[in-house]
Amino acid sequence: MNELTRLRALRANMAAKGIEALLVTHLPDVRYLCGFSGSNAALAVTAKKALLFTDGRYTAQAREQTRGARAVIAKQSALKEACALLESLVKKRGHASYDPEHTTVSALGLMRSAISGARRRAFFSPLPGPIVSELRMVKDAAELRLMAEAAALGNRIFNAVLPHIQAGVPETEIAAGLEFFARSMGAEGMSFETIVASGPRSALPHGRASGHRTPRNGFVTLDFGVILKGYCSDMTRTVCIGRPGPAERSAYAAVLDAQEAAVAAVRPGVTCGEVDEAARGTLRSARLAKYFTHSTGHGVGLEVHESPRIAAGQTLELKPGMVITIEPGIYMPGKFGIRIEDMVAVTERGGKALTTVTKALIEL
Amino acid sequence: MNELTRLRALRANMAAKGIEALLVTHLPDVRYLCGFSGSNAALAVTAKKALLFTDGRYTAQAREQTRGARAVIAKQSALKEACALLESLVKKRGHASYDPEHTTVSALGLMRSAISGARRRAFFSPLPGPIVSELRMVKDAAELRLMAEAAALGNRIFNAVLPHIQAGVPETEIAAGLEFFARSMGAEGMSFETIVASGPRSALPHGRASGHRTPRNGFVTLDFGVILKGYCSDMTRTVCIGRPGPAERSAYAAVLDAQEAAVAAVRPGVTCGEVDEAARGTLRSARLAKYFTHSTGHGVGLEVHESPRIAAGQTLELKPGMVITIEPGIYMPGKFGIRIEDMVAVTERGGKALTTVTKALIEL
Repeated sequence: MNELTRLRALRANMAAKGIEALLVTHLPDVRYLCGFSGSNAALAVTAKKALLFTDGRYTAQAREQTRGARAVIAKQSALKEACALLESLVKKRGHASYDPEHTTVSALGLMRSAISGARRRAFFSPLPGPIVSELRMVKDAAELRLMAEAAALGNRIFNAVLPHIQAGVPETEIAAGLEFFARSMGAEGMSFETIVASGPRSALPHGRASGHRTPRNGFVTLDFGVILKGYCSDMTRTVCIGRPGPAERSAYAAVLDAQEAAVAAVRPGVTCGEVDEAARGTLRSARLAKYFTHSTGHGVGLEVHESPRIAAGQTLELKPGMVITIEPGIYMPGKFGIRIEDMVAVTERGGKALTTVTKALIEL
Repeated sequence: MNELTRLRALRANMAAKGIEALLVTHLPDVRYLCGFSGSNAALAVTAKKALLFTDGRYTAQAREQTRGARAVIAKQSALKEACALLESLVKKRGHASYDPEHTTVSALGLMRSAISGARRRAFFSPLPGPIVSELRMVKDAAELRLMAEAAALGNRIFNAVLPHIQAGVPETEIAAGLEFFARSMGAEGMSFETIVASGPRSALPHGRASGHRTPRNGFVTLDFGVILKGYCSDMTRTVCIGRPGPAERSAYAAVLDAQEAAVAAVRPGVTCGEVDEAARGTLRSARLAKYFTHSTGHGVGLEVHESPRIAAGQTLELKPGMVITIEPGIYMPGKFGIRIEDMVAVTERGGKALTTVTKALIEL
């Protein structure tokens, strides 16, 4: 049971950092640690106990899913009951930690209101670092299988939708087809809003599908992901309707070079910043770096964006078991944009692309 | 231009509450106030100025969408640059407010780090109440049109998917069809994960579509919503494959009575708690109240769940222009569940259902 292994790893980390008790409220963290996937959850963890608090909507689901923790249906607030329990579990003068990245100022106020007067102010302290997302960065064998499955589903969906990309079609219609294939092939949902950005709209890095129709001649960027058994995929391909001009063709080649350079740079011990620089440096040589306006990639797993960040200056070193995206792009406002993105698993021997659709320029 | 009216209303509220400067970071609030819909945004508002900070991915989009505020592309952190600007705009000893409901403890730390040493600690104070979501509760004419459109699209999608609900079909396939119709008919996306819960799974109030196949005889609950021009719809119908037994039939009648009682209770000046009680009391009379394990409804708009909450004890009074859901349900673990949900606009004369699909029990 993976959840038990994960809770054990968490407790080892807690002990190493002197954390006596931990409140976990970020839902993907809760799911990772104890399997529960409902939308209201607070997990209280100490060295010996783990209790999951949720509400009456999830009575059946909590019983069915939760592993390694006892599921409790809160009468009022799951969050406050989890806090009150933590207070009862830790000794006098003891403390509990919470995740400041995923706790709002209001939630912290609620949490404190559940603690008895004298201890209230000092009971909760922010975690010194991202203890659960650090664990989640390195996927276990079961997760790697699920992520390979999710990425493979992405590949099949792309191949299925390709014949439907034609001139004069609204972007939303392409998205509709893509998402229909996704669902029909077993996806639980999309991991983010599908991007279909065509013609000059391909210069919008986050151009979600709109009513605009695809051009007679020009790029179409598809950036999409599915959720399969909770795990996210994420891939991008830019295809061309009609024949690309020389500027488009050479820009595409430059982005592809940058993408392949970054994938080739992936291996254990290399920093995330070095992977970013492999892509960015390639585009710099092609005098296109100023059009590459975002970072090279990000971790992916239970969330479509998670640690690590593959960005300039990031000193975190890659480890086997990480799964990241490599997605350089260039964006020429008013003209066109190109992005190519693979999901890449870090293995002992280097990066292994889970996205296997061709990256050669597809002309439709 | 609605955004200008909204910013004006916000400033009037700020003045009334003695708020000199406001940092808005919750994305639907930003979109509501200035039209920008990107995923990274911080809006700084004072009596005279409004500046929207975002990043390089959104250069074109920010220029295209932003109304009533000047769009600024941040070099580093949009959030920190917005804070630094606020500091420069308010007088010595002045303060800025932020929304503690949507600001994490970490974000508050970042915000403070952008303020110069001496002022850092005291510069930001939490808003005394939800100033923007309070405005957003009451929709303006343009919003009401968009919400009616979104709800009407929901109605059409339900009617289109109905013939595809048959015995022995995986729930995900029904969701696939439903979402395909949604996209094909112009939806930008779904407003939440589509719920298709059939047979005993209908007893899961949040049973997102799974690989389970629909039963030969039993309920199927469809709960779904679309996003249209940014605005969300939300509706639920429970249909029956085959003929319902007497227990199922009387339970359905009780939920329908409760739903209609709550819709009938909607009018200006009535409290949200009274609307909830109209549904809950009806189920109590039918001895089914203990199976109604959630609240009666919620506001809907740019977010699928927003203020007000239609729940027991809520003293907020309904006003014309609010749009809420009315969605009582009962859940018999291991047996079946039933939920019926309309989107309802509050008008001077009472509640007007935007969801117009029949609520009589559909037997397939």
